Amino acid sequence: MAYELHYWPTIQGRGEFVRLALEAAGAPYIDVARGAEAAGQGLPAMLRLMKDRTQPHPPFAPPFLKDGAVLVGQTAAILHYLGPTLKLVPRNAQLQVWTQQIQLTIADMVTEAHDTHHPIDTGLYYEDQQPEALRRAQAFCRARLPKFLQWFEQIIVRNPAGPRHLVGGKLSYADLSLFQLVEGLRYAFPKAAAGALAKTPGVVQLHDRVTALPKVAAYLRSERRIPFNEQGIFRCYPALDLA
Amino acid sequence: MAYELHYWPTIQGRGEFVRLALEAAGAPYIDVARGAEAAGQGLPAMLRLMKDRTQPHPPFAPPFLKDGAVLVGQTAAILHYLGPTLKLVPRNAQLQVWTQQIQLTIADMVTEAHDTHHPIDTGLYYEDQQPEALRRAQAFCRARLPKFLQWFEQIIVRNPAGPRHLVGGKLSYADLSLFQLVEGLRYAFPKAAAGALAKTPGVVQLHDRVTALPKVAAYLRSERRIPFNEQGIFRCYPALDLA
Repeated sequence: MAYELHYWPTIQGRGEFVRLALEAAGAPYIDVARGAEAAGQGLPAMLRLMKDRTQPHPPFAPPFLKDGAVLVGQTAAILHYLGPTLKLVPRNAQLQVWTQQIQLTIADMVTEAHDTHHPIDTGLYYEDQQPEALRRAQAFCRARLPKFLQWFEQIIVRNPAGPRHLVGGKLSYADLSLFQLVEGLRYAFPKAAAGALAKTPGVVQLHDRVTALPKVAAYLRSERRIPFNEQGIFRCYPALDLA
Repeated sequence: MAYELHYWPTIQGRGEFVRLALEAAGAPYIDVARGAEAAGQGLPAMLRLMKDRTQPHPPFAPPFLKDGAVLVGQTAAILHYLGPTLKLVPRNAQLQVWTQQIQLTIADMVTEAHDTHHPIDTGLYYEDQQPEALRRAQAFCRARLPKFLQWFEQIIVRNPAGPRHLVGGKLSYADLSLFQLVEGLRYAFPKAAAGALAKTPGVVQLHDRVTALPKVAAYLRSERRIPFNEQGIFRCYPALDLA
């Protein structure tokens, strides 16, 4: 049975980390909210599930994954759940926790990248919090972005199995998520990202290896990959990049 | 062998979620950075481990847990790691993912509570971002705080094993973390928290049951429990509460 991924239909957002795992593993899935309402899919199907009062494990927010009767929300928890089945995490329990730790650190950076354009209120438009966004983005580009990337570089270089992957000697969902993080940072903060990535060659090489994986490359060329846009987490607002 | 918990020594912060799990389970642990430097502990011991270049799994930030040769960072990953050993999570794998999902949603709320006093730059003082903090805190108190608490209420009420716990019929680390979240919200936003909690009786009752657990009660009375203060995540700045 195909997995059902539920996420906002017009953005990559946090759903993209799950999409990449499903695509890289060649797992069958339905991107429910992007499907046709006539087929019982579309946004109403996602909202119906979120509001279903009989659901014992309702998600707080999208993305969430439906796998038969199992419903899982929170990006990192979804990937932790999918990892063993999709063979995107080592079997070793300790390395599974390490992969999860990396994913949570990626999630922290994603939240901080999001908050550069929404530092005050997610219920308001960017335009309604622009002066604050300028200040927050400067702090992000100058301090946080390089600090996070340096940590990823460090753990790649220190991987006992070699610097081709974040965890062990095989592709994991953390590699796919780091690829997506680099994609997003380059889109949203081209100058700041270029400056920091020039000092983290291991991160860049890992990103490039993921890009070249046949299933990932095919996905990126397909219409299933939603282009970056200014409704998502990573937004190209030149004012928020380094001068 | 005792666990080593590494966290900033003067605040509850994110380390408190781990402390509560260790205390509630009666697990032996050393709160390293609060120990004596003469005994090889204290803040230098924590910083030494963070800077150790031979460490293959360095944490991005405290808290982190050392269990023999294993080092685990990220609060939710630490609790996921400790859960089975401390018997603070069901054995069922699906319920373990659900517990993790709840913990990650608690972590999201903790980050948003923190950002009310640091909406712009974690490297600056609150006083240097106060106008922005006032705006962000209003959005948090009016929209986000009630929304999160309503979700916790919902999942307590819907727990198939009854509303005494978040997951199944026994205490889990998520219960302990929700207790701590309520403690923090009441300290930082007494008016906003009182208003929202009046509509979430299940959350309040669960909080009260955790408070009354003998090991938790003993811990809260002890000097091991650091009082809330204005260097931590939850800070009592009346200007940031609802008017």
